[in-house]
Amino acid sequence: MIIILKSGIGDAEIDDVCRRVTEMGYAPHIIRGEFKTIVAAVGEERGRPDLRLLEALETVESVIPVQQPFKLASREVRQEPTEVRVHDVVIGGKVVVVMAGPCSVESEAQVLEVAGRVKESGAKILRGGAFKPRTSPYAFQGLKEQGLKYLAEARKRTGLPVVTEVLETESVEMVAEYTDILQIGARNIQNFTLLRRVGEMGKPVLLKRGMATSIQEFLLSAEYILAAGNPDVILCERGIRTFETTTRFTLDLNAVPVLKKLSHLPVFVDPSHGTGHWDLVAPMAKGAVACGADGLIIEVHPKPEEALSDGPQSLKPAKFAQLMRELRPVAEAVGRSL
Amino acid sequence: MIIILKSGIGDAEIDDVCRRVTEMGYAPHIIRGEFKTIVAAVGEERGRPDLRLLEALETVESVIPVQQPFKLASREVRQEPTEVRVHDVVIGGKVVVVMAGPCSVESEAQVLEVAGRVKESGAKILRGGAFKPRTSPYAFQGLKEQGLKYLAEARKRTGLPVVTEVLETESVEMVAEYTDILQIGARNIQNFTLLRRVGEMGKPVLLKRGMATSIQEFLLSAEYILAAGNPDVILCERGIRTFETTTRFTLDLNAVPVLKKLSHLPVFVDPSHGTGHWDLVAPMAKGAVACGADGLIIEVHPKPEEALSDGPQSLKPAKFAQLMRELRPVAEAVGRSL
Amino acid sequence: MIIILKSGIGDAEIDDVCRRVTEMGYAPHIIRGEFKTIVAAVGEERGRPDLRLLEALETVESVIPVQQPFKLASREVRQEPTEVRVHDVVIGGKVVVVMAGPCSVESEAQVLEVAGRVKESGAKILRGGAFKPRTSPYAFQGLKEQGLKYLAEARKRTGLPVVTEVLETESVEMVAEYTDILQIGARNIQNFTLLRRVGEMGKPVLLKRGMATSIQEFLLSAEYILAAGNPDVILCERGIRTFETTTRFTLDLNAVPVLKKLSHLPVFVDPSHGTGHWDLVAPMAKGAVACGADGLIIEVHPKPEEALSDGPQSLKPAKFAQLMRELRPVAEAVGRSL
Amino acid sequence: MIIILKSGIGDAEIDDVCRRVTEMGYAPHIIRGEFKTIVAAVGEERGRPDLRLLEALETVESVIPVQQPFKLASREVRQEPTEVRVHDVVIGGKVVVVMAGPCSVESEAQVLEVAGRVKESGAKILRGGAFKPRTSPYAFQGLKEQGLKYLAEARKRTGLPVVTEVLETESVEMVAEYTDILQIGARNIQNFTLLRRVGEMGKPVLLKRGMATSIQEFLLSAEYILAAGNPDVILCERGIRTFETTTRFTLDLNAVPVLKKLSHLPVFVDPSHGTGHWDLVAPMAKGAVACGADGLIIEVHPKPEEALSDGPQSLKPAKFAQLMRELRPVAEAVGRSL
Repeated sequence: MIIILKSGIGDAEIDDVCRRVTEMGYAPHIIRGEFKTIVAAVGEERGRPDLRLLEALETVESVIPVQQPFKLASREVRQEPTEVRVHDVVIGGKVVVVMAGPCSVESEAQVLEVAGRVKESGAKILRGGAFKPRTSPYAFQGLKEQGLKYLAEARKRTGLPVVTEVLETESVEMVAEYTDILQIGARNIQNFTLLRRVGEMGKPVLLKRGMATSIQEFLLSAEYILAAGNPDVILCERGIRTFETTTRFTLDLNAVPVLKKLSHLPVFVDPSHGTGHWDLVAPMAKGAVACGADGLIIEVHPKPEEALSDGPQSLKPAKFAQLMRELRPVAEAVGRSL
Repeated sequence: MIIILKSGIGDAEIDDVCRRVTEMGYAPHIIRGEFKTIVAAVGEERGRPDLRLLEALETVESVIPVQQPFKLASREVRQEPTEVRVHDVVIGGKVVVVMAGPCSVESEAQVLEVAGRVKESGAKILRGGAFKPRTSPYAFQGLKEQGLKYLAEARKRTGLPVVTEVLETESVEMVAEYTDILQIGARNIQNFTLLRRVGEMGKPVLLKRGMATSIQEFLLSAEYILAAGNPDVILCERGIRTFETTTRFTLDLNAVPVLKKLSHLPVFVDPSHGTGHWDLVAPMAKGAVACGADGLIIEVHPKPEEALSDGPQSLKPAKFAQLMRELRPVAEAVGRSL
Repeated sequence: MIIILKSGIGDAEIDDVCRRVTEMGYAPHIIRGEFKTIVAAVGEERGRPDLRLLEALETVESVIPVQQPFKLASREVRQEPTEVRVHDVVIGGKVVVVMAGPCSVESEAQVLEVAGRVKESGAKILRGGAFKPRTSPYAFQGLKEQGLKYLAEARKRTGLPVVTEVLETESVEMVAEYTDILQIGARNIQNFTLLRRVGEMGKPVLLKRGMATSIQEFLLSAEYILAAGNPDVILCERGIRTFETTTRFTLDLNAVPVLKKLSHLPVFVDPSHGTGHWDLVAPMAKGAVACGADGLIIEVHPKPEEALSDGPQSLKPAKFAQLMRELRPVAEAVGRSL
Repeated sequence: MIIILKSGIGDAEIDDVCRRVTEMGYAPHIIRGEFKTIVAAVGEERGRPDLRLLEALETVESVIPVQQPFKLASREVRQEPTEVRVHDVVIGGKVVVVMAGPCSVESEAQVLEVAGRVKESGAKILRGGAFKPRTSPYAFQGLKEQGLKYLAEARKRTGLPVVTEVLETESVEMVAEYTDILQIGARNIQNFTLLRRVGEMGKPVLLKRGMATSIQEFLLSAEYILAAGNPDVILCERGIRTFETTTRFTLDLNAVPVLKKLSHLPVFVDPSHGTGHWDLVAPMAKGAVACGADGLIIEVHPKPEEALSDGPQSLKPAKFAQLMRELRPVAEAVGRSL
């Protein structure tokens, strides 16, 4: 790290900073400029508590990290891309993988119908929420275990692996029994207890970026799961919060190439939550594939206008089928398949 | 709610919208303009699932709520301000209440020293973290139950009630045994399971706004606690995420008068996390009191440069004492006391 | 518009609101709910001063527009897409048009070299800045008229039409003499005097979204140009300011389908300024074309590490050539050509 | 500056970077870490084009400035606070100075009435807009020179100096003839031609922060005026754009102590534009004074509900008088007077 001292700092104070740097296990190098003195602290920063603490000193102006704070998630530590295998589906390989299904599981008939339709159109994994995090306490909160059972039934009939969200540590084991991929939602991106717990379960995790999560924090949240011994983390961009209100969130496709540069983990995009409007899902899905996403997660509902959650952003099965047909040439144009 | 239909929508489609509005329990009123037809759906919106679902219809351009979605937290439902009592401390009354203490509990000696010093300076409640949510898995995660014991010891010696953060549903009961106020941190503002659980504990809750939480979402999170039967919720602004980087977050003091207008709940401000720099704590604390905050929560550490968390934003006890002296006339200038 | 009155408002006050609505040229309709009364003000809102003024009344809670405030830019007013013709280049048609060239014109040799190279690779229009808006007064401010002459020379030799930025009303005429398309930069998006002036020049205008400009404000800025009699406006997304710092700005590709939905004007994307890093330009350029952009504007410099402005986001000519080869199949995948 | 090289960079490439650093006038110091090599470039950074250009090199990961890029605006260069004198009003001294008046000048009667009322209540400077930057081309654009004449008349009758906005370089001289302080509005914060022009006029400048302007960019815009020879710059925070929509902008009071720390220039706050709602003006005005603002600029209108611009955020004269009475003890509580 680079420690920038305040103007007019004397030798005794520089020595004090260097002593602290040494005690924290780094080698200090002093560089005296005309206006500022800086101390470069040399040593491995990744995976260690940080020197930024020294900003508490009245002699220090600021402390600037040189290395990224995550380690296991880093492309520097592992150069080849991680492939996550879920039965016979390979995530992070040449094939762009599409997960699709209803926002909420509402009934057995609904989930079976959607599962059949999205499989027909080429989706490889079935999504569906049984535990729903809802902004309002008065909104539908999900069918809970009953919903998981419907998902399991849909998997049995279609052969599609299932991804579903887990909301709380108490239900991780129960959810893990029914699902193939555990999803951590945007609102739990810094629920560190939950991250550690899913890290211990030995099942792939779909980790959604929070609405105010920086790329660095996103990879540090992935690091919690990796550090718990689970290498199978799939990152998912799903929209950040900005001043713009024509979209529900601002789907940040820049995150795709940035994450691919910094990390070896597969990167997905959720254009349904990211935009909040069904008519924006198709263009943003194509944009996501073209800029390098390894997969998509898309909401499909037979009657969006009667959905118990997120109807306005759900595609009808026919529109989803059309999108899949349109996505294929885009995937091929960037050397992938669908 | 107001349902704005797309241009060129015919009578059959308007009837379809009205039928749906009626089925959802609202009375529809059609208003035909030259360019747009709108349907006003009359009825109580608060505490009910919402008509925005109709945005999923291809005939609907957008749906605009007329009422706020929260109910129990609303000033319309309860006009007089809520006062939360913690032993003999009244929160939300004429006195501006200051909570102070270390970010993390690090040792018994540390917490006892700080408790004594902040009491001397006029703090009414002791803060201290035993369970720490940390962005990096490699950072200090708190002393856990041992930390709670040190806090209890400090309370015994000083008589100061204690506020501490609870991170997960499994430890709510344990934390509640030791503390007087349960704190929900910014990262758990939409951990709805946790909100419901603290709502059931019968202890006051200090609820911190998340870094990307809108005022409306903030009050809906409070609504989860209130709806679980707990009326003693203290709202706390602690900085939102914006493009500005000279401060760690952007402490949003506007939230103080906005929350006081919309809700009857007491409103606190955390200038330590909100700014991230100890030298900004004093001016922003004064600003908070002047614009109407009912209290402050401030980090104090005897040696910030050796703190295990958030040293750069902690005040030394002497600086805290000075701040308390300077706050008193500000509180009086706005008709409060300290 | 919809005027939501405060709770407990009596008949006399409702009448007062209705009277004001009528005086402002709208027809008021009163809808009395159980909890709120609203007044719907029926009439053309587009292109008229707005009723939101009534929010100044103590009886009014809020005023909500029903129609978009822009008119000439609106898809409702003109349904077929606008095509802007610049010599034999058609912007907004089937062909995705690429504008390329150096950020700043630095010398005749530089601009001639780049112009030749980007033409070879398939760019249809040459970009280059002669007047540079720079954050710091100490940075290179452009070659001014001399730079325009070099651009004109490059056009003569290559046949490529030229786009260049105009910074101030005084130089609009001079710049218009040399250029084929006038560019309004992000920092001038609400320089209304300048917008009107370029609106009067009869040359196509490339209008860049500002870093904090909402979609609605963006189209209102376009409206200034259109209202001055110039129909040839090309909208350009170039990144908005958010909390994320791994990219210089957050290129908002969502703006592409949103703008295409709301407006008939062609939509371009600038992945160079939008991301600020040359290695993100190619993926985001592909994403932009896949999600429906009508064109791209890309910075190309023979020696980015010696550029007088924005070197870090400039492509070398060979990388630009490769990008153009890779873009072609993406354009074809979405039914366009390049 | 600190230049962080990519992993695995060899000696020849390090030498190349050092050679470039030397050519740009800095002294390079190489620091080899276990994982990263960094080059510290020693020398004055302020007021010079910047080394960040080197980020264009494929061998460089990032370049981090050590010094602030502004110079004349910097507290390091000038330690004592700048006082701006306007006739007998001292801005930036012990007295908190309040500027007040209508958003737009609408008629002679209106401006004379408001001028008299705000003077009576203790305002020291009269504000009023004659040239109005309006988001919509269909909105009232100001009375222009006629408005300036009314302001001059109001000054003659009340003795209050006048501040008014100048929108464009062509009218700077005309506006300067009538006004005592030239205001640069938020939308022109990076209209560098205009900044230079007002810098040459020899009149104090009230410079409003833009809605997406970082503190660093704000001070660089001030630097344009200072570098043109005009030392009398007053900074004004007026709200930034964030995700929060209950306020029109997010008034960033943190900017007050941050600017006072980095710069010697006086700092004002505009709670009218910053919040957009008249009932938030008083609490935020008090907050601003308590956290250290040198002054306020507040909109006052006799009939806000009929104002030609910004009615919803204007105070009636009686409410303004009350605010001034309430502000006095707040100013005194922080060692100032009003």
